Amino acid sequence: MSAYSIGVDLGGTNLRAAAIDVAGQILHRVSVPAVYDAGPKAVASDMAHVIQSVRERVGRHGLQGVGIGVPGFIDINAGVVAEAANLPGFDGFPIRDEVQHILGAPIVLENDANAAALGEMWMGAGAQVKDLILLTLGTGIGGGIVSNGRVMHGFLGMAGEFGHMTVFPDGNPCGCGNFGCLEKHASATAIAAMGRMMHFGRDVTSEGIWELALEGNERAKLVFEAMGRALGIAIANLINVFNFPLYLLSGGPLPAWDFFAPSMFQEINRRSLVYRRSGTRVEKAVLGADAGLYGAAYLPFQFEPSTPFAVTA
Amino acid sequence: MSAYSIGVDLGGTNLRAAAIDVAGQILHRVSVPAVYDAGPKAVASDMAHVIQSVRERVGRHGLQGVGIGVPGFIDINAGVVAEAANLPGFDGFPIRDEVQHILGAPIVLENDANAAALGEMWMGAGAQVKDLILLTLGTGIGGGIVSNGRVMHGFLGMAGEFGHMTVFPDGNPCGCGNFGCLEKHASATAIAAMGRMMHFGRDVTSEGIWELALEGNERAKLVFEAMGRALGIAIANLINVFNFPLYLLSGGPLPAWDFFAPSMFQEINRRSLVYRRSGTRVEKAVLGADAGLYGAAYLPFQFEPSTPFAVTA
Repeated sequence: MSAYSIGVDLGGTNLRAAAIDVAGQILHRVSVPAVYDAGPKAVASDMAHVIQSVRERVGRHGLQGVGIGVPGFIDINAGVVAEAANLPGFDGFPIRDEVQHILGAPIVLENDANAAALGEMWMGAGAQVKDLILLTLGTGIGGGIVSNGRVMHGFLGMAGEFGHMTVFPDGNPCGCGNFGCLEKHASATAIAAMGRMMHFGRDVTSEGIWELALEGNERAKLVFEAMGRALGIAIANLINVFNFPLYLLSGGPLPAWDFFAPSMFQEINRRSLVYRRSGTRVEKAVLGADAGLYGAAYLPFQFEPSTPFAVTA
Repeated sequence: MSAYSIGVDLGGTNLRAAAIDVAGQILHRVSVPAVYDAGPKAVASDMAHVIQSVRERVGRHGLQGVGIGVPGFIDINAGVVAEAANLPGFDGFPIRDEVQHILGAPIVLENDANAAALGEMWMGAGAQVKDLILLTLGTGIGGGIVSNGRVMHGFLGMAGEFGHMTVFPDGNPCGCGNFGCLEKHASATAIAAMGRMMHFGRDVTSEGIWELALEGNERAKLVFEAMGRALGIAIANLINVFNFPLYLLSGGPLPAWDFFAPSMFQEINRRSLVYRRSGTRVEKAVLGADAGLYGAAYLPFQFEPSTPFAVTA
């Protein structure tokens, strides 16, 4: 049995776990519905049981550690979800210690988007680099920064709030109080909002607009062109600031790449001298929904080999 | 004799060097005119001689290493100035090896703005933190990123190109090919340009506009208000992305702080939820022109104590 770890991804719909070996091979995976009604203690218990079932299936021997990715701002040192807008009752809940207590084994906690960035570095589009930024396009826009192989957290775990970068100072109003936030111009939600402005009806979705674009609808194409411009402005700024070799995009709107990428690259090329002078890559992430699982599983492997992650139970 | 290092700062006008001990005490300092006419080899020779004179004055015993800050993009591993717009003939010149050869002692090379950021972390406004961003306002806008006590270079040494962040997508044209670059709205050069638009005459300087503002001139105050807005947009983006505890400003326009800071903080507060939720500090740098000297001297101290920086000659 080769060394492996268990990665857990707590999503809005599913709680997933996978045993992944040091070479990135998935040995076993489990997915159960994520049930939030009974509160955070019950979620922690479900997590521990999912981890236990994977551990029993694959075998205790060789288990290097367990990593968990959850939404929200994470206080890494305390192992606490400091702020989770989408997880009622989780604010300040000591989820790491709770799962550790039930499981009798140490856990590494991480924000889910940060875990996804780490997963892409380990086994995805970033497998050749140690520095990358992942932008996840969904209801909002989040993401993660991996620098020298490690997640950058910021001093309160709030680094990587790409969705609230200002791209148009007088742009669309955002719930955060700002105008022109990236996620008001480039998220799946923003795409749908632009679609409504293009008179595609109040129930139109970003997928629906993509289908219209595929059929050749010019207004639908314009929506993605505008979305690509906003993305390009933000990514150009990131390239000028970080000079990383790789920037990745993931999330629901990714299939519309051919419609938003041309204007995105036009803006990046115009607005980033660093991009023009270097071999910077801006690409699709490749692991899809599994990125977070891979990243969570990678968390225990981050530590120095000299300080192995003892599994005590 | 306590342990010390020698920091060198190659500026447009002066070549300066200082012996600084591990506690940040300046033991001895030298400044000579920077002479570029005779080419990079002559500059390297001048550097070596300045370092030698400091070393002889303070004593070889206790010298931990030598750090040099120079303008331009630095290839850290090669010790080469990869691109130096303001230093003709320096492109690709192996300045580190050249000085090492003359001196017979190892050198650490760094970009001057990165060195200044490091200096502020070590002995300046950032002495309590390990993560900070320094923005230097001059002809353009540059700066440095210090993360976990180390300079972030990016994969080609081009990280920290803050001056070319887009703050107004349809703003002032920049020589880089972009529109609305931060340095076209907030550098000393931009302040003077705005002053010309305010009919202060073609020879007006940022200092002159500051003096007019001090006298109560409303148009001069408007210039700094506009400059503060551009700075605020860029800094809000940096705060949302990095969640660092500290952002510092330095450079010629700093004395006008009271005129540009109110609009700057208004924009930061409006545009950064991370700022509003955390105790982020945005402050004046305190070391002035000595920041680069301190940072250069700190470079050898960055290395692990287990790998001491042997001075062989």
